[in-house]
Amino acid sequence: MHFASDNSGPVHGEVLDALAAANQGYAMAYGADSLMNEVRDRLRAVFEAPGAAVYLVTTGTAANSLALSTLGSPWQTVFCSPVAHIHEDECNAPEFFSGGAKLTLVGQNDKMVPDALRAAIEKEETRGVHGPQRGPVSLTQVTERGSVYSLAEIEALCNLAMEFGLPVHMDGARFANALVALNCSPAEMTWKAGVDAVSFGGTKNGCMGVEAVIFFDEAREWEFELRRKRGAHLISKHRYLSAQMAAYLKDDLWLRSARQANANCARLADGLRAAGARFKHEPQANMVFASFPRHLHRKLHDAGVIYHLWDGELDGTDEAEHVTCRMVCDWSLPEAEIDRFLSLL
Amino acid sequence: MHFASDNSGPVHGEVLDALAAANQGYAMAYGADSLMNEVRDRLRAVFEAPGAAVYLVTTGTAANSLALSTLGSPWQTVFCSPVAHIHEDECNAPEFFSGGAKLTLVGQNDKMVPDALRAAIEKEETRGVHGPQRGPVSLTQVTERGSVYSLAEIEALCNLAMEFGLPVHMDGARFANALVALNCSPAEMTWKAGVDAVSFGGTKNGCMGVEAVIFFDEAREWEFELRRKRGAHLISKHRYLSAQMAAYLKDDLWLRSARQANANCARLADGLRAAGARFKHEPQANMVFASFPRHLHRKLHDAGVIYHLWDGELDGTDEAEHVTCRMVCDWSLPEAEIDRFLSLL
Amino acid sequence: MHFASDNSGPVHGEVLDALAAANQGYAMAYGADSLMNEVRDRLRAVFEAPGAAVYLVTTGTAANSLALSTLGSPWQTVFCSPVAHIHEDECNAPEFFSGGAKLTLVGQNDKMVPDALRAAIEKEETRGVHGPQRGPVSLTQVTERGSVYSLAEIEALCNLAMEFGLPVHMDGARFANALVALNCSPAEMTWKAGVDAVSFGGTKNGCMGVEAVIFFDEAREWEFELRRKRGAHLISKHRYLSAQMAAYLKDDLWLRSARQANANCARLADGLRAAGARFKHEPQANMVFASFPRHLHRKLHDAGVIYHLWDGELDGTDEAEHVTCRMVCDWSLPEAEIDRFLSLL
Amino acid sequence: MHFASDNSGPVHGEVLDALAAANQGYAMAYGADSLMNEVRDRLRAVFEAPGAAVYLVTTGTAANSLALSTLGSPWQTVFCSPVAHIHEDECNAPEFFSGGAKLTLVGQNDKMVPDALRAAIEKEETRGVHGPQRGPVSLTQVTERGSVYSLAEIEALCNLAMEFGLPVHMDGARFANALVALNCSPAEMTWKAGVDAVSFGGTKNGCMGVEAVIFFDEAREWEFELRRKRGAHLISKHRYLSAQMAAYLKDDLWLRSARQANANCARLADGLRAAGARFKHEPQANMVFASFPRHLHRKLHDAGVIYHLWDGELDGTDEAEHVTCRMVCDWSLPEAEIDRFLSLL
Repeated sequence: MHFASDNSGPVHGEVLDALAAANQGYAMAYGADSLMNEVRDRLRAVFEAPGAAVYLVTTGTAANSLALSTLGSPWQTVFCSPVAHIHEDECNAPEFFSGGAKLTLVGQNDKMVPDALRAAIEKEETRGVHGPQRGPVSLTQVTERGSVYSLAEIEALCNLAMEFGLPVHMDGARFANALVALNCSPAEMTWKAGVDAVSFGGTKNGCMGVEAVIFFDEAREWEFELRRKRGAHLISKHRYLSAQMAAYLKDDLWLRSARQANANCARLADGLRAAGARFKHEPQANMVFASFPRHLHRKLHDAGVIYHLWDGELDGTDEAEHVTCRMVCDWSLPEAEIDRFLSLL
Repeated sequence: MHFASDNSGPVHGEVLDALAAANQGYAMAYGADSLMNEVRDRLRAVFEAPGAAVYLVTTGTAANSLALSTLGSPWQTVFCSPVAHIHEDECNAPEFFSGGAKLTLVGQNDKMVPDALRAAIEKEETRGVHGPQRGPVSLTQVTERGSVYSLAEIEALCNLAMEFGLPVHMDGARFANALVALNCSPAEMTWKAGVDAVSFGGTKNGCMGVEAVIFFDEAREWEFELRRKRGAHLISKHRYLSAQMAAYLKDDLWLRSARQANANCARLADGLRAAGARFKHEPQANMVFASFPRHLHRKLHDAGVIYHLWDGELDGTDEAEHVTCRMVCDWSLPEAEIDRFLSLL
Repeated sequence: MHFASDNSGPVHGEVLDALAAANQGYAMAYGADSLMNEVRDRLRAVFEAPGAAVYLVTTGTAANSLALSTLGSPWQTVFCSPVAHIHEDECNAPEFFSGGAKLTLVGQNDKMVPDALRAAIEKEETRGVHGPQRGPVSLTQVTERGSVYSLAEIEALCNLAMEFGLPVHMDGARFANALVALNCSPAEMTWKAGVDAVSFGGTKNGCMGVEAVIFFDEAREWEFELRRKRGAHLISKHRYLSAQMAAYLKDDLWLRSARQANANCARLADGLRAAGARFKHEPQANMVFASFPRHLHRKLHDAGVIYHLWDGELDGTDEAEHVTCRMVCDWSLPEAEIDRFLSLL
Repeated sequence: MHFASDNSGPVHGEVLDALAAANQGYAMAYGADSLMNEVRDRLRAVFEAPGAAVYLVTTGTAANSLALSTLGSPWQTVFCSPVAHIHEDECNAPEFFSGGAKLTLVGQNDKMVPDALRAAIEKEETRGVHGPQRGPVSLTQVTERGSVYSLAEIEALCNLAMEFGLPVHMDGARFANALVALNCSPAEMTWKAGVDAVSFGGTKNGCMGVEAVIFFDEAREWEFELRRKRGAHLISKHRYLSAQMAAYLKDDLWLRSARQANANCARLADGLRAAGARFKHEPQANMVFASFPRHLHRKLHDAGVIYHLWDGELDGTDEAEHVTCRMVCDWSLPEAEIDRFLSLL
């Protein structure tokens, strides 16, 4: 019963098989493998974007930092949520890769809203050369609190960015989970809404370690390649990245896995709700932030259930006090495990 | 008949099996997996260095850049060979990760020699705050031209560095190939000779994508961890790096593979020599830089042999002109392939 | 009637005379001039800090950025007020010089308070290698809104920083104005309260362009010198920086000028108050943020008075609406000018 | 008798007078002073470049580093002489400001020549994304050894750069000395020959601390302004930079001073030659690298003459051994001083 993170789960069997299948003979290194051509074509088709620039890297932080540094400049500020992964969980990687850009935190929540974004953007306009310059807008889909931006919400933020001539980046570490939650097309969730570049996650959804970076405008293609190499993120035996991503896209494995993860999460959330848990954010994808009494957490903990507490401590005097935890479901979780967990409640 | 690079070959079966074996259930992410503890212990034992700090990353460029930036400072210059990978093949990654350090090229050859290193170091001393400050010495073992520093040569360079208080880094992308060529212990080739940090390559010798960084002094451990994360090189599903490295070390796979690669290369070199080829650098590990007439290159090319020309062109008017090529052997090359190649000569 | 900025005023006659006096014959360049020795001794005496490291640069942004980058690391975050100059007015210079450090904005006001600082510091502790690491605390004295931290307030913030092992930097672009407002000693306002490094401003208070950077601990002396040179802030004809600072300190010119500026400001504030203006921040040094009806602003503007509006526009339909402006007084402002201004009200 | 550096001399009286004259009342800060408009117009006229972008900074290192980082990219390499100031005397400032660009040293001498430049440029072409990319060519006029590139030499290097699409930067710390040596127009020595940007020195030739950066193409104007501010090189009381540069250009002070400095140097060189000194580089502007016996150096030293030894030591057993020294003449040196020096010989 392991709900700590979708980074903790195993690699999907179809991905592992693809790695073995790719392990034949010689292949050109550094992204010149023929499998990469397939991946590029496939992602362009998936996104209905025949001219998109497509790259693979091994970490979400690399995808985000390289994409943002390519979209922006060192003297700019990136607009993002105060709980964005790029702000809280990347040890200043975006600042490092961009050469010292700033991050401006928009609003108080996991989702940015247009009013707060407008206020943040407008605030940066009054100081000429003295203040940081306006840079990319970065939104996280699924957010770090398990919410999903609706298409209308994405579009509203993108329109605002466009009004000020700012590019939009989507941190899609859980892109697939958001997509199946919205039941829309990848194009609708991205370039049709106004997104310029996407970090398209594979690792959290069944891959071993691969993320795609997709630019819908090819103009910065060569710059990105140089940034990737300079960041030491160009993999020599690249075919093994290609193989993962090819398997991930094949027969909609990415969508199947995301649907399973979201369904697992819904089952978990329903059970928690029935047991009286409260949700600060309505779970919409594969993460739950649930709040319930301390004694229940202790009981679960003693039974070997693994998850992160989000605020508060396991030990405390007030047994009835509500403590919030984060639970993440991935595709690999068997239903029986969830039911076993719920029976503990 | 593929001699282009040891980056082009497949992953060793034992490594692939280890990845499959590691793919069970849940594991802590970001290097907290239990397999990493095994790897750390194993590498400390291999290097007879119980207090060594050990990390895994996915590329040699990351290993080199992170190690050098941890050993040095942005206002320093790194002393290295003019053909060092860190200078010629990393698109300014060492400069990027270090925050703008310089590289001083020592001598004209693939190996640095003490006199040239002393001259280079002493030259940087006369300008106080104005000039770049002296920084780490980085030597490549096997060199980029297929030569191997002897223990005495390494020691002489390290002693010189120590005289000036400079740390020494070894780029060991082909560490195993050098080790079996010297028939010495890892400790003798590194810290016993005076080396402070090693990029210990796995990828070119049968792994999928893993390099260890080893510091013999733990003092900079936490800084390295922060640099790795900030450089987006901390892998979430880290157990798959650990599994590769564990398999690489298990039952001396790394040494077996290196011995095979070097033996392949010796067989190739002998055949080339017999056919009249000339060597600019005596092949000592798994790389040959051979020079022979253009018409022979053309014949090989037409027969489908793949390798890189190092100078000159395949097409040219003078059929007898000698053209130099680089041929690299990895562990996976069957003897029959080499013999088939040699029969073409 | 010019109240736009203390950057707009002239150079004090005593400073100009000192420049002329220094203009004799030859002098060692790059800070080795004998005048610099005098300046160093004098500042050490002024701060009762015989072991302090003392440097001169030409801009406040250089002083701040070089000091902070010396005190901290690229993977850290600097704690400061959301209206700090280092955040709002330096075009990401602190991020640039530090190699990509972050700034964490503490509270909502020009002054940080211990509770908000503690909350901000504690928030950064929970993410291990993933989050930005805690770095220097930077406080601005006089604040960007004209307030002055009391000694007790400084001490409380420094104690908090010390509790977490964090160094404290004081941006003292208007150091002298704060000092005479508090009527304390430089030592009391800095190291006796727990401050580790100071940007000691000269430019806004009668110099042509000189700021001192003072570290009370010499340990990072050489690193600072290298950072200054690498940042292109080591001035060749350094004697002309030394001469300014020497004149500034001689016969307490710095204190005389600051007292005059503050007195000018008090006279201005009293007059504004009498005329019905409101103050968002009680003016304590040489800056006023006053709010009064739009028609009055227009009248002043038409009479040629120069100052910056802080919010709102000169043109607007509601003549009675209060609009806030910033007015800054320097030492050079004749009393008669202020009275002439007040008579306009 | 002081020949150590043109950084050691005083400020010209006309410059000092201009500073005093500028010290009236209030002026807009940060380059918006009206004097800067005059300077801009004047420099555009001097360079016959009505559309040039013109900026002032306080150090030559800032001028060079900001110009080069604006012309190039972090993944590129700058081509320069191995004795270029940007390589030897700026403590990695170009690397810092560019975000980690490399410097490729061309040839062995103070002057680059087309063949060596072509070889260096072509060498960087063969590695695709792996190697550093080709970046700006930077030439120093007057060179660091006192030589002056002829117009034909500049043009040949610029043509070569243009052939590869590379921008050309001229480090003109001693621009005026070169110009009067060539007896040509500023336009001929720069954009008419193919130079894209110039660091136009004032400090070494009679100013207190001011260098202009001139781009003949305005396209990167705003980027330069942001880089200057972010580098902490935007001066608040900017009128005092403008005043220096205005005085420097007025009535050809810059040319008068340079002619005097060069004449001083020629007088010195003639005397040295007559006394048997040898010159490694023929002195063409205001610097001499002269070689003569140790005992003569000692005699001069004992008489209080100040200059830098370039190789060798004052103390040594062989009294007849030739030791090389560098002697620099500025405009302020009275002829009588030179004659007094020569009489010592």
